[in-house]
Amino acid sequence: MRATVLHLPGEIALVERPKPRIVDGTDAVVRVTTAAVCGSDLWWYRGDNPFDQPRRMGHEFIGRVEQVGPDVTTVQAGDAVIAAFKVSDGTCIPCSDGYTSNCHRGSYWGQSDRDGADLDGGQGERVRVPYADGTLVPVPGGLDEALLPHLLALTDVMPTGLHAAQCAGVRPGSEVVVIGDGAVGLCAVLAARRLGAERVTIMSRHPDRQETSRAFGVDDIVTERGAKGVARIRALHGGLGAAHVLECVGSEQSLQQAIDCTRPGGQIGMVGIPHGVPLRPRDLFIKNLGLRGGGAPARALIPGLLPDVLDGTLLPGAVFNRRYTLDEIGTAYADMAERRTIKAQIDVTPV
Amino acid sequence: MRATVLHLPGEIALVERPKPRIVDGTDAVVRVTTAAVCGSDLWWYRGDNPFDQPRRMGHEFIGRVEQVGPDVTTVQAGDAVIAAFKVSDGTCIPCSDGYTSNCHRGSYWGQSDRDGADLDGGQGERVRVPYADGTLVPVPGGLDEALLPHLLALTDVMPTGLHAAQCAGVRPGSEVVVIGDGAVGLCAVLAARRLGAERVTIMSRHPDRQETSRAFGVDDIVTERGAKGVARIRALHGGLGAAHVLECVGSEQSLQQAIDCTRPGGQIGMVGIPHGVPLRPRDLFIKNLGLRGGGAPARALIPGLLPDVLDGTLLPGAVFNRRYTLDEIGTAYADMAERRTIKAQIDVTPV
Repeated sequence: MRATVLHLPGEIALVERPKPRIVDGTDAVVRVTTAAVCGSDLWWYRGDNPFDQPRRMGHEFIGRVEQVGPDVTTVQAGDAVIAAFKVSDGTCIPCSDGYTSNCHRGSYWGQSDRDGADLDGGQGERVRVPYADGTLVPVPGGLDEALLPHLLALTDVMPTGLHAAQCAGVRPGSEVVVIGDGAVGLCAVLAARRLGAERVTIMSRHPDRQETSRAFGVDDIVTERGAKGVARIRALHGGLGAAHVLECVGSEQSLQQAIDCTRPGGQIGMVGIPHGVPLRPRDLFIKNLGLRGGGAPARALIPGLLPDVLDGTLLPGAVFNRRYTLDEIGTAYADMAERRTIKAQIDVTPV
Repeated sequence: MRATVLHLPGEIALVERPKPRIVDGTDAVVRVTTAAVCGSDLWWYRGDNPFDQPRRMGHEFIGRVEQVGPDVTTVQAGDAVIAAFKVSDGTCIPCSDGYTSNCHRGSYWGQSDRDGADLDGGQGERVRVPYADGTLVPVPGGLDEALLPHLLALTDVMPTGLHAAQCAGVRPGSEVVVIGDGAVGLCAVLAARRLGAERVTIMSRHPDRQETSRAFGVDDIVTERGAKGVARIRALHGGLGAAHVLECVGSEQSLQQAIDCTRPGGQIGMVGIPHGVPLRPRDLFIKNLGLRGGGAPARALIPGLLPDVLDGTLLPGAVFNRRYTLDEIGTAYADMAERRTIKAQIDVTPV
């Protein structure tokens, strides 16, 4: 079967790999119908993460179950499924707490699991899924072409946007600022609205992303950066900034921007993976701020989001503004890296 | 009148200063009956804060109103009052939000206010109180000798302990770890119990503080530090640590200890003033933690605590384990710096 590998930063290729098979009784094998490229894939692609060896790529995928091990109880061959962006066993203490992204036996697609076995990446034709009950969510009614982008958004970006909003304590009537106009930032707008936010501002300089943010319900768009951007945000939010700020980038500047845009006593939700970001706790202390975040517990959040996607009331798939075949995966990475595409939908095998 | 001045780190003295008078219509003049030395005074005393000039000392005091300006409406001459540890106007947006410690016109006792006028310190016979309505809380029934330490604890350490617990999200049934066995850490134990915590562990190596923590309702005392301390905490709290950790010190080691003692998905309340502490947001991100805190909004919290102090159901004053006269203020500092005294009560003028 064909699978995507990053040979070196910037060098994406399709390679032949053996078809995966059931290893443990809790495994499933999933045929990937549709995958996505994630902003965090680009950290590797751009060489921003330390690179040690070629990597199987992709952690956002949906598909059909082909085979299950004898201990799998919640999905069966033929089922349409959404995979969370990280493996989770569903039974350890963090999983029971709802923090599936902190699972004791958790591992990342395309990397080694805790026993040293290589895991398949999601940007390939098939994937062995460990702990299938704890990792996959079945889609009642199966896969429908029009639903694909919305279901695909449930693997990562929509739960991550929701996690940002929840970590920032967004509730009915909240004023919210979203930092970052990538797919996660855009989904964070949608999530804030879903939680009842009254006013949502996004910082964005890209016309295509601004358009999507408007479709997702944003009230104001701030194009300025730095001190000017902070001044605009404060002016829009009572002179002091917003009580709920969603940090969806992960750079030093974006975290500082978040702190500066937050009103005293406010709360920052942090879902951008911090890249070499130092923080002075005193900056939080002085303004009596809260900072909370991490990898979204997608597996725990998907079941609450899926019914609304299925009945058409939640449509996060608009973040996918271009489709590619698996053969075009290299182009998809390049387009995202150059910001020609907000988020790439990869059609891998027939639905 | 006599007032306490820190001439240089380590050099505490009583000096003569002019009696304060009403300057603004919103001022009051308070005769200080009882003051306290705070752990944060020791940062100056020890030379851990950058020292530029002699400082008027003390920000924890209770007393009697002697005089009020024409615009003061909530207290009058003769009233017994508690002063919050920071001046607040009570009317700006942060004050209205309940963050009186982030008041726009806020200033610190003993330092210059926003207009450049010097403020009196609390460790002296009289204090001019700006924004008396926004800063002072009247004590119905007046000052009673037995109540003094408990009322004095309401100026700072008890609201700060409560702020720690609230920032850490403590609620009925919570498992809580308190880092720091100073007066604030001890009050944090009391606050956690008050909020319904089911199990409270403190890290403490001092027998006198351990005893007070037991009186305040602690279940377990961990005397080990570093990795051993973390291992003990985790063992006591389900193997992973507690969901609510209260950081009441402010050093680099204590914040790291807090992060290490917190269960994935947990929340740290931070009230120790961070002293040169760097933090990697990634350390929070990886465990999906929250960190929240700052200077306690004492003025906003005192009215909720005072009735329970007056009816004897909340007795935080046990943190004061030694009394001194104002003449002995130098000894009080030395005793606290050497940990011979947990917290010093200074009898300044007759009740």
